Amino acid sequence: MAFANLIDGRAIAAQIQGELSQRIAALKARGVQPGLAFVRVGEDAASKVYVGRKEKTSGELGIHSETHVLPEATSETDLLELIAKLNADSRVHGILVQAPLPKQIRQEIIYASVRPEKDVDGFHPMNVGKLMLGDDTGFKPCTPAGVMELLVRSGVKTDGAEVVILGRGNIVGKPMAAMLCQKGRAANATVTICHSATRDIKAHCRRADILIAAMGVAEFVKADMVKPGAVVMDVGVNRVADAASKSGSRLVGDVAFAEVQPIAGKITPNPGGVGPMTIAMLMQNTVRAAEVATK
Amino acid sequence: MAFANLIDGRAIAAQIQGELSQRIAALKARGVQPGLAFVRVGEDAASKVYVGRKEKTSGELGIHSETHVLPEATSETDLLELIAKLNADSRVHGILVQAPLPKQIRQEIIYASVRPEKDVDGFHPMNVGKLMLGDDTGFKPCTPAGVMELLVRSGVKTDGAEVVILGRGNIVGKPMAAMLCQKGRAANATVTICHSATRDIKAHCRRADILIAAMGVAEFVKADMVKPGAVVMDVGVNRVADAASKSGSRLVGDVAFAEVQPIAGKITPNPGGVGPMTIAMLMQNTVRAAEVATK
Repeated sequence: MAFANLIDGRAIAAQIQGELSQRIAALKARGVQPGLAFVRVGEDAASKVYVGRKEKTSGELGIHSETHVLPEATSETDLLELIAKLNADSRVHGILVQAPLPKQIRQEIIYASVRPEKDVDGFHPMNVGKLMLGDDTGFKPCTPAGVMELLVRSGVKTDGAEVVILGRGNIVGKPMAAMLCQKGRAANATVTICHSATRDIKAHCRRADILIAAMGVAEFVKADMVKPGAVVMDVGVNRVADAASKSGSRLVGDVAFAEVQPIAGKITPNPGGVGPMTIAMLMQNTVRAAEVATK
Repeated sequence: MAFANLIDGRAIAAQIQGELSQRIAALKARGVQPGLAFVRVGEDAASKVYVGRKEKTSGELGIHSETHVLPEATSETDLLELIAKLNADSRVHGILVQAPLPKQIRQEIIYASVRPEKDVDGFHPMNVGKLMLGDDTGFKPCTPAGVMELLVRSGVKTDGAEVVILGRGNIVGKPMAAMLCQKGRAANATVTICHSATRDIKAHCRRADILIAAMGVAEFVKADMVKPGAVVMDVGVNRVADAASKSGSRLVGDVAFAEVQPIAGKITPNPGGVGPMTIAMLMQNTVRAAEVATK
């Protein structure tokens, strides 16, 4: 996939990780090793893959990581107890509780129980609030922060641009809108948030200079929904049936890449676009958490 | 101003205050009087007027109110000390620090120092985060919450509507967008946030089913920017020179009311539209704070 208009998320993530290596070396020079604790509940296959990738990148960067696996039947109290322990552990600078959680556990209670200073996922209400208020002392959620970095490092001009975001979720759509409409670097855009109740989603998409697809609908964005020359960022991860694949399924994004790529000004591949950036931003949040905790 | 298409904020605020009276009576029946503390720093004329109005409504409803006035030269430490006292005072269920604050005081530090359970202004990052996450256990900022109530109680259908918000501020624009794009009652709208960097703001305004003006630019919205039949909500409060007025100035909104009113489907007058609702929502937050604190 060597199209000239690709935004190479793997290359940009590698660049960021190179920058982080220097910050980690500086921390180690004063006796600090950044530490990241993963918490996984149950045996969800996708969660195992996601945590596995994050562990691997942590290891490559020299970030200490530890993974706590609790059984599917874990109670909320037991999970809160583990988080309290990790909150108190000075070797752990970042805590990531991998979603999804089993039904008996209230996600919002868990996210709010992680100390905001260790909430490297950026899901604690305090960090969400700071993001919305434009207060940079909090942690930003990794996926929208990764999209922002891709835009900046690909030289995409957002100032005054028409941005259309497909999806209003708490993890991507809403924080993405807050980030892009603010004043400042890689922002200052006019932002429209579309979703399942939007009347004419195609018309909105067609006027976008930058289209960010985060609806979770496989190959939703077709060529006739994209303005020629637009920047298309594909955040979706959807599993679809595929008889030709060994596993019987494969992952696709929210963008019909093959038909959209030829008309897009710039476009993220998927995989290899936003995904690697989410991990890079998690590492960046963890390094910053360690720096702030030990400065 | 007895136009058929007016959204009468005074009447709707009075209706809400009637509902609150019953809740306050229920609190008093079990020995609880809701208490609201105002903090004002310096002698800003507008602040005096605003706090005065809120005190008056508190009194009418039987909410205990107390106003703490600090001199313009007050240090951040002194203000934090007062807030800590009010945080600890069980007779005080709500705390409102009136903006603007003098330059030596960092607004974000002050807002974050009010206990989230007493933050009836909805400005604490924790409450801002909850709003953004769709978590109703927090306090919503009074002005956008008031606009939502006006829409609901005027029978305006937001579901699937095209909403255009002018302004991206922390007090109105951004929370307004978060409220209107969410699923649920009086929401589920497609939301566009416009601001000073928006390329073609007129085109956005002209496609709006609901136009919310919160830019702080006197009479910015003209008749040729409004789609016939659109709902127009005017949040602006701008002081303009007026030789004919005794004070030499008068307050106008962000909407050129005289020319927009005839083509709007519904429109808020200004004054008498959003303003009274801001106060009603403050009272509602205070009553809820008292209910939650004493239940």
